[in-house]
Amino acid sequence: MAARALLVDIHTHIYPPRYASYLRQRTSVPRILSRPTGKGSETEERLVILNDEPGGGRPVGPQYWDRGEKLRFMDKHGIDISVISTANPWLDPIPATEAVSLAEDMNTDLEEFCSGSPSLSSDESFKRVYGLGLLPLVSGVPIQSILDTISQVSTLPHLKGVIMGTRGLGKGLDDEALEPVWEAIAKAGLVIFLHPHYGVADGREWGERENGHVLPLALGFPMETTIAITRLILSGVYDRHPSLKILLAHSGGCLPQLSSRLSSCVTHDPIVAGRLKHDVRWYLGKLWFDAVAYGPEELEFVSAVIGRAERYPDTHADVSTQAALTADSAQWSKQEGARRMLWGTDHPFFPPLDGNEKWKSVVENLRAIDDVTSWTETERLAVRGGNAISLFNLET
Amino acid sequence: MAARALLVDIHTHIYPPRYASYLRQRTSVPRILSRPTGKGSETEERLVILNDEPGGGRPVGPQYWDRGEKLRFMDKHGIDISVISTANPWLDPIPATEAVSLAEDMNTDLEEFCSGSPSLSSDESFKRVYGLGLLPLVSGVPIQSILDTISQVSTLPHLKGVIMGTRGLGKGLDDEALEPVWEAIAKAGLVIFLHPHYGVADGREWGERENGHVLPLALGFPMETTIAITRLILSGVYDRHPSLKILLAHSGGCLPQLSSRLSSCVTHDPIVAGRLKHDVRWYLGKLWFDAVAYGPEELEFVSAVIGRAERYPDTHADVSTQAALTADSAQWSKQEGARRMLWGTDHPFFPPLDGNEKWKSVVENLRAIDDVTSWTETERLAVRGGNAISLFNLET
Repeated sequence: MAARALLVDIHTHIYPPRYASYLRQRTSVPRILSRPTGKGSETEERLVILNDEPGGGRPVGPQYWDRGEKLRFMDKHGIDISVISTANPWLDPIPATEAVSLAEDMNTDLEEFCSGSPSLSSDESFKRVYGLGLLPLVSGVPIQSILDTISQVSTLPHLKGVIMGTRGLGKGLDDEALEPVWEAIAKAGLVIFLHPHYGVADGREWGERENGHVLPLALGFPMETTIAITRLILSGVYDRHPSLKILLAHSGGCLPQLSSRLSSCVTHDPIVAGRLKHDVRWYLGKLWFDAVAYGPEELEFVSAVIGRAERYPDTHADVSTQAALTADSAQWSKQEGARRMLWGTDHPFFPPLDGNEKWKSVVENLRAIDDVTSWTETERLAVRGGNAISLFNLET
Repeated sequence: MAARALLVDIHTHIYPPRYASYLRQRTSVPRILSRPTGKGSETEERLVILNDEPGGGRPVGPQYWDRGEKLRFMDKHGIDISVISTANPWLDPIPATEAVSLAEDMNTDLEEFCSGSPSLSSDESFKRVYGLGLLPLVSGVPIQSILDTISQVSTLPHLKGVIMGTRGLGKGLDDEALEPVWEAIAKAGLVIFLHPHYGVADGREWGERENGHVLPLALGFPMETTIAITRLILSGVYDRHPSLKILLAHSGGCLPQLSSRLSSCVTHDPIVAGRLKHDVRWYLGKLWFDAVAYGPEELEFVSAVIGRAERYPDTHADVSTQAALTADSAQWSKQEGARRMLWGTDHPFFPPLDGNEKWKSVVENLRAIDDVTSWTETERLAVRGGNAISLFNLET
């Protein structure tokens, strides 16, 4: 029972040293560049991961790759365990000829990063740090190499899944070529953490006003995730691989709020509807969602759409035959939905403006959990850590 | 009090005859074309409003322009009053030289369409049909012509606002050139119904799988609305024109679900934060949202984010000083939020696959209201019609 009171951060990134070295060698985005600070001969490193990044990229330092820094951040905020993942854009920009060996080396590095972390003082059966590996999902890489990397990750005891972007092999996650990949990941029982990087429309929708990085990060990122998981669902991947475990970044973006509209549009399109075994809303009950949405109403809503999934087994359910919702059944479905939500911080992104403050991403996302009025303490503990321990099978 | 029990559809479109004639003359999208049905010499008209529309466009006929057809649809579904608007893409593709006179003529036509509609038999002080006019928002049109059209709409007694796309004069709704337009619309007390047409990214995000029109309609449309209203808010339009009344199509797209993330991203960007008087979430309490979201959880959530707005007056509110939410305060905020939601159908889009059925868009969106367990009958009546009567000032 003690394990269920742990605080587990499942959305927390690093740029591993090997990857940082690689970024330093690059001359185009993504890259790490060195520039004068203006104070004598002092230089500083800047990380540029997106085109046209405001301020010439962000300061980058040990908080991005040093385990001690990660643990200090965890200690400062009372985080017991972190399930870390390489930050975007992963191996996407790496040539196919190098991607496979770099993926394997980075997975080995990450295993060492985790296995060398301290044990949890309150329960020595846990490490403080676990990881999500990388697959060489790059155009031109043979599928067999991806399958081999899945096998490698499965053998590394502290890696509990993989982080994945939205592009697949260049054609998105509804690419038929990925079928053996889904099958292998499902069979291995690895969790896929689906995470955005590109936003939408190469930034052409953001207009001419100076809005810094707000629009691509706040809107573009979650929209990208939403499009990717929707295409995956509509392609029938979940019908063919029902045991696939996908965890969506940023609480699934806007998939929850658009899911009934999506269902309605599918119902009006016989070709798509005929391809799927279930109403689109049903598949949301098979997904996991991080709780990185910054507000209690958002979390309550996401738990409601997860919890309602069982009401929508059929593609063409007739609304008139469904039982009316009651306050009790709605409450129950929100509590049930909370079993598939997992707290996270998005560290080391969004650092505080004042370096001594607690990080807002931590404080706000914890506070959001406390403020979901339809959850009991049981659900709050589950979202804070219990669900992560179950999903990632951390107790074994 | 009788008025409060009326069923009012505020999201219902027509292509007025004058516009349909214009579309028939066009040789590129948007257009109405005539093609053989394959049965002898019989032809049919197809409406093509988007590039690459599946099936060569949709069948178009009197349901798109005939008042009798609109009234029959209303009678079939027990709809007392419709607030109709021209469907997308409005005047967007019209050359500036023609847009002003076409807007004025279409507004006059629409006034006649409404004034010639029957009175409501249960309360003869109401017409069955009211309308939302058009502005010549086209690149190259002088601002004064737009202001003149706003004046025109204000003088037409059955037009209660305007419908507007997301492009403004070609640079979006955060274009400084639009300042006099916002000022004039706010002063005239006209409602802006903000509606999408373009989706996002010219469809480049939808992949190669055959998904018909599902992705651009279910995801692209609401994402477009979300981006447009976010850019408008971030530009400070609401700070300068606090009495502006904007009603968002499709329940605001994904703005509600992304609003706390948006707030967080703004807080981390001092330039944007410094420009705004309030936390982004505060502005959602100044908007209206249609209730065209197809599910009860979606509606409850939208009402919650509207109702919570008052909790976020400041740009840099410190989360630790906020009062904890209680079940009572959360319930109250959802009921308060329901005062800014208005039922609609999206007629004549999404017709039933079997022509004799009731329209799913009607049945599902009414059912969704009934199933919001945190609303009382008072909120349900308000969303079904009472809010529309207040917002559009239909009683005068």
